[in-house]
Amino acid sequence: HRKNLSQSFESIITAIETEMSAQTSLPVGAVFGLGRAGRIHFGNIASLRLARVKYVIDADPKAASVAAAAILGGQTDELPKFLLPEEEDQAMADPEVTFCVICSPTMTHETALRKCINSGKQMFCEKPIATSLESMKEVYKLAENKGLLLHCSFNRRYDPSFSLLRDRIPTTCGEVHTIRTCSRDNPYPSIEYLRTSGGIFHDCGVHDLDMACWLAGEWPSTVFATAARHNPQLKDFNDHDTAVIVVKFPSGAIGIIELDRRSTYGYDQRIEVHGAQGMIASNNVCDRAVTSSTAAGVNSANIQYSFPQRYAEGYVNSMRSFLSRISGSDENAMIVTPIESLNVSTLADACEKSLETGAPVKFQPINTL
Amino acid sequence: HRKNLSQSFESIITAIETEMSAQTSLPVGAVFGLGRAGRIHFGNIASLRLARVKYVIDADPKAASVAAAAILGGQTDELPKFLLPEEEDQAMADPEVTFCVICSPTMTHETALRKCINSGKQMFCEKPIATSLESMKEVYKLAENKGLLLHCSFNRRYDPSFSLLRDRIPTTCGEVHTIRTCSRDNPYPSIEYLRTSGGIFHDCGVHDLDMACWLAGEWPSTVFATAARHNPQLKDFNDHDTAVIVVKFPSGAIGIIELDRRSTYGYDQRIEVHGAQGMIASNNVCDRAVTSSTAAGVNSANIQYSFPQRYAEGYVNSMRSFLSRISGSDENAMIVTPIESLNVSTLADACEKSLETGAPVKFQPINTL
Amino acid sequence: HRKNLSQSFESIITAIETEMSAQTSLPVGAVFGLGRAGRIHFGNIASLRLARVKYVIDADPKAASVAAAAILGGQTDELPKFLLPEEEDQAMADPEVTFCVICSPTMTHETALRKCINSGKQMFCEKPIATSLESMKEVYKLAENKGLLLHCSFNRRYDPSFSLLRDRIPTTCGEVHTIRTCSRDNPYPSIEYLRTSGGIFHDCGVHDLDMACWLAGEWPSTVFATAARHNPQLKDFNDHDTAVIVVKFPSGAIGIIELDRRSTYGYDQRIEVHGAQGMIASNNVCDRAVTSSTAAGVNSANIQYSFPQRYAEGYVNSMRSFLSRISGSDENAMIVTPIESLNVSTLADACEKSLETGAPVKFQPINTL
Amino acid sequence: HRKNLSQSFESIITAIETEMSAQTSLPVGAVFGLGRAGRIHFGNIASLRLARVKYVIDADPKAASVAAAAILGGQTDELPKFLLPEEEDQAMADPEVTFCVICSPTMTHETALRKCINSGKQMFCEKPIATSLESMKEVYKLAENKGLLLHCSFNRRYDPSFSLLRDRIPTTCGEVHTIRTCSRDNPYPSIEYLRTSGGIFHDCGVHDLDMACWLAGEWPSTVFATAARHNPQLKDFNDHDTAVIVVKFPSGAIGIIELDRRSTYGYDQRIEVHGAQGMIASNNVCDRAVTSSTAAGVNSANIQYSFPQRYAEGYVNSMRSFLSRISGSDENAMIVTPIESLNVSTLADACEKSLETGAPVKFQPINTL
Repeated sequence: HRKNLSQSFESIITAIETEMSAQTSLPVGAVFGLGRAGRIHFGNIASLRLARVKYVIDADPKAASVAAAAILGGQTDELPKFLLPEEEDQAMADPEVTFCVICSPTMTHETALRKCINSGKQMFCEKPIATSLESMKEVYKLAENKGLLLHCSFNRRYDPSFSLLRDRIPTTCGEVHTIRTCSRDNPYPSIEYLRTSGGIFHDCGVHDLDMACWLAGEWPSTVFATAARHNPQLKDFNDHDTAVIVVKFPSGAIGIIELDRRSTYGYDQRIEVHGAQGMIASNNVCDRAVTSSTAAGVNSANIQYSFPQRYAEGYVNSMRSFLSRISGSDENAMIVTPIESLNVSTLADACEKSLETGAPVKFQPINTL
Repeated sequence: HRKNLSQSFESIITAIETEMSAQTSLPVGAVFGLGRAGRIHFGNIASLRLARVKYVIDADPKAASVAAAAILGGQTDELPKFLLPEEEDQAMADPEVTFCVICSPTMTHETALRKCINSGKQMFCEKPIATSLESMKEVYKLAENKGLLLHCSFNRRYDPSFSLLRDRIPTTCGEVHTIRTCSRDNPYPSIEYLRTSGGIFHDCGVHDLDMACWLAGEWPSTVFATAARHNPQLKDFNDHDTAVIVVKFPSGAIGIIELDRRSTYGYDQRIEVHGAQGMIASNNVCDRAVTSSTAAGVNSANIQYSFPQRYAEGYVNSMRSFLSRISGSDENAMIVTPIESLNVSTLADACEKSLETGAPVKFQPINTL
Repeated sequence: HRKNLSQSFESIITAIETEMSAQTSLPVGAVFGLGRAGRIHFGNIASLRLARVKYVIDADPKAASVAAAAILGGQTDELPKFLLPEEEDQAMADPEVTFCVICSPTMTHETALRKCINSGKQMFCEKPIATSLESMKEVYKLAENKGLLLHCSFNRRYDPSFSLLRDRIPTTCGEVHTIRTCSRDNPYPSIEYLRTSGGIFHDCGVHDLDMACWLAGEWPSTVFATAARHNPQLKDFNDHDTAVIVVKFPSGAIGIIELDRRSTYGYDQRIEVHGAQGMIASNNVCDRAVTSSTAAGVNSANIQYSFPQRYAEGYVNSMRSFLSRISGSDENAMIVTPIESLNVSTLADACEKSLETGAPVKFQPINTL
Repeated sequence: HRKNLSQSFESIITAIETEMSAQTSLPVGAVFGLGRAGRIHFGNIASLRLARVKYVIDADPKAASVAAAAILGGQTDELPKFLLPEEEDQAMADPEVTFCVICSPTMTHETALRKCINSGKQMFCEKPIATSLESMKEVYKLAENKGLLLHCSFNRRYDPSFSLLRDRIPTTCGEVHTIRTCSRDNPYPSIEYLRTSGGIFHDCGVHDLDMACWLAGEWPSTVFATAARHNPQLKDFNDHDTAVIVVKFPSGAIGIIELDRRSTYGYDQRIEVHGAQGMIASNNVCDRAVTSSTAAGVNSANIQYSFPQRYAEGYVNSMRSFLSRISGSDENAMIVTPIESLNVSTLADACEKSLETGAPVKFQPINTL
């Protein structure tokens, strides 16, 4: 399965020759919000060179323009136009703009998406689409009615190690017994962030719930959740910093999810699937393969620091998938579907209910918008 | 903390000089059952050289004598006397015999222990002490009343890696968030064994429940269990082959236990404790540190095959602890206490009840016999 | 030593603000040869966004333009002008061009560099500068006389794991006893390539010799080399496919270099330094952290395939260093000096002589051009 | 290739039944010297239960008896008779004694062996047999003439990881390119020990030279050695503490041996064989599989401390091989042959000569006594 390098280049070249004759121009887009996630997406669009960002909408255009310049290096001719949120209709009204990337604050997602739908823009949106299940459904339906793509980016699915793990489950594991995910966050978020995060199940757990169901290939029939609060400050808004979720799938497979807001040693992200034939695991990744051995012991490199490092490739792949779909270059590129997005959100609700009642909750997946 | 070899020898020598002058003779014992566990214990007593086995009671004395000879090598002068179960009173009546090791079939444990108590013998017993909680309590009380030691060997506590892990929890983890144990058995037991095993929670889960509580240093307040049956033959006796237990401790720590009867790649025994300061993990052990790298990939050694390999040191250490206690050479040697043994068995009952009702079960530990 | 993400962004932003006010325009360059190495450098210049490539000189401009388009994605406005080698004077005569990247075939390096020097261009050159030591010296002197930078890119020095290893030698190892490097190539080169490669010591060994001396911080006093030929085709041009070099440093440190043209399991690149205080090692890197465990054994991910994967960061960092030097943005960026380059080449000659005579060869480093 | 446990017991039992009917009594032996190595061998004979030690000859019989008692635990009836060196003829004259284990100080080996040969005892001897090559040859010839076994224990060959590695070379590596061994000692020996050790090549290097040749299956044609002295005290007796040996085999395989007297992080013992098909490596072994991850990094268990830990199984297997040969129970048990022992010693001489002359030395293996 390894490719000879020169062969690989040859095939790229052939593909490009074919494509270039047909190609006219790059899709043009607008990015809402150039915060932490926005900068990642803006940088990936630039490095993928599959689209061009014409507008960036941000409440602090000076900071946004400096960050954009930092990402683009000295190529100032590529700099987008910077708009204040109140000026965003300029981008909406621009017919050249065919897609929007929504990574503004969570509470603004729904409004932005509705504007995009009205203006006929394709949408790449950071989770969540909206803050209630009903609103999410409505937004998805509106997009569907207009024939617009609305991709809620669950970037972990696009991580190459997790994809590889999933592909190998049938041959390595056979009938699945357990699916374990462990997600321990780093650095510990600020109390301001936590206050409006939506809670550990909606803010963190959705990624693991999506992953477990995506690996299982089915939706669970029951959900049990328990949690603990080690940081007393979380009591104000009834949140927790450690949580365990157990989901039971109709096939008999059991999912075990561990979530923690704190991890002193880096961003701990592991998955393990065990079945009748064997086990497959995706372990943590180290930045450097350097190991020191002294009288004080054997010390290996730290695992990666946080999500921008660990999921760098996942972010790129998710954006590539979206751009390939809207440009028509790959109509089969994986997209998180509305049904998937809605079910995962419903599962997070079920976790909250289970924690509240202390009992497992039955889960009935929705199948249509 | 590393010892200089010659220093180490010097201190052993000094200790022995002191001891030998006082020493009179080795404790003399009887072993009930020379099956799989019995052979391990018999061999460990021989290699520890801290006691002498005078009798072996077994329904097949020929097989037992051949096995004993195999273990002892050519030193036939050390061979014990072999008795049929119906002749066991000979050993009971022998005043030289001060201790018994009970590793006969499970249903015979209680009767054997009652005889031992009546005859004033110290007891090392494979789990379980008896098949009902009431009987367990009664036997423990009888032993206590006679001032006899009854050590129910949970050998994993004596595993040096797990001990080391436990010792380091305060400094490495700080306040504990989660305790995860994963126990996947190998080889898959025969259906005959499974039929009388007592079920996955009592046969397997007790070890992990004991470990989780021993590491936590507290008893859980709630227990939730779920399970799956991948082998349809288990339906006959309502058993399961995969199970997940979640226990919540009063401190806020959460225990997550995964049990599986099947593991194709060896005997998978892992523990991981995570807390406010960091994580400590005990991983699987390989027999050989040999790795092959070819075009087919990187292949490392198999993990250890089954419990006799993985817990070889644990079995030795548990026996040493018992013999040190009854000989008086170490009055602080760790013993599984009656309260611990009874609570762990009650926890396995709680798992069964949780599985049956589909809901978490409150747990109230017993504190006195 | 870990940086908080948002802090890190803040400092980037501040740096950029300062810089942007001063910045006028990007350095403009020409790339000679868009083969395997040329494509890597061309892509890195594009992604670094610290310079602009105006010309590409290549004997097959169609293939070159297709490759460039593939690398740049759809951004056709960034495409350079493609020249045939006989048209290269166009680029030389263009006063906007301030630097050249020489990655055309080895025998053309010297001529291209002389033209660059005459035209006052800064130079980034793939090894070797020239095919004889005398010519190398002459070219370096000419560049020095004109005040031009001539960076012979030994990309391994720019690998972050190796840099980290080097930084930690004083504290981890203390007085150095041994420096071991192991370089096993993959895929096995074509016989055509090998015929003109310059031999295993000049083609492969120079990287390890440079690394060993860079880590030791001194030049060796003696060199011993031995080699074997497992592929009989190499006899035609008196080359070998396995070689071992032992160098003795004045400090007493011993360097041990193993080279192999063949490695079935990927691109094996390891370094280990051992000293009075301990050992530090840089191990192979895996693409994916996925491990399968089945009855057939424990199988971990393959190590990286070849040099473009393994040294991807090294290539980027080396180009960044060069561009930072010529743009004046970092005058301390590490550059391979003429003296280093010449000594390493002389060491490869010494290896050849040692192999030929069967005896160690004394080495006297040159200190001035 | 994994054995079912009960099957394994069945086959042991069958073997024992057969054997016990024939068996009369255990071989009886004498141990010369109960120092560091003597205690290991004495303990292994006791635990193997394939022989009985009747005499221990030691200049300090009190220390020896205390050590023996410590090893045997409380079983004082097994204690041997303790003799002073001047009383050793008692053991020699005892017709019940059929074998001797020589682990007294190096300079006494030859005299002890000559006595054993005269008295018709089989011999297990710590290296070296004698201090000159001529004496070694003579002693081997005398033993051969009397039909006596003289086993010079190179325990590393009996290490199960190294045996496994050797068995897999044909399939994993194919045609061998390089054989690398790394032996770094711990703890650093006392200057008294070093003064009479025979030098780094004879004291340490022989093990690696034996291993490299055993793995290669051939004797080298040339030997090159270099060395360094980091501890100036070694100058008094012209010894070195770091050494590198390169041997060239007739097949084209190259052996690379690294020796160091100092290793702060434990007893570093690695082997790696690389060939046309792939690589096989035996890595260091950790005592415990416990890993801590904190903000300070990822810390794994120390590698084993020193030779008694690392080669514990090798020592047992070597003694079992010897006892199996002299008892006739396994006539194919591997023994280090006189030719092997003599060639390895000659190779160490060649290393010394190479170091002295600074040039490689041709090696001509001897083929007959």
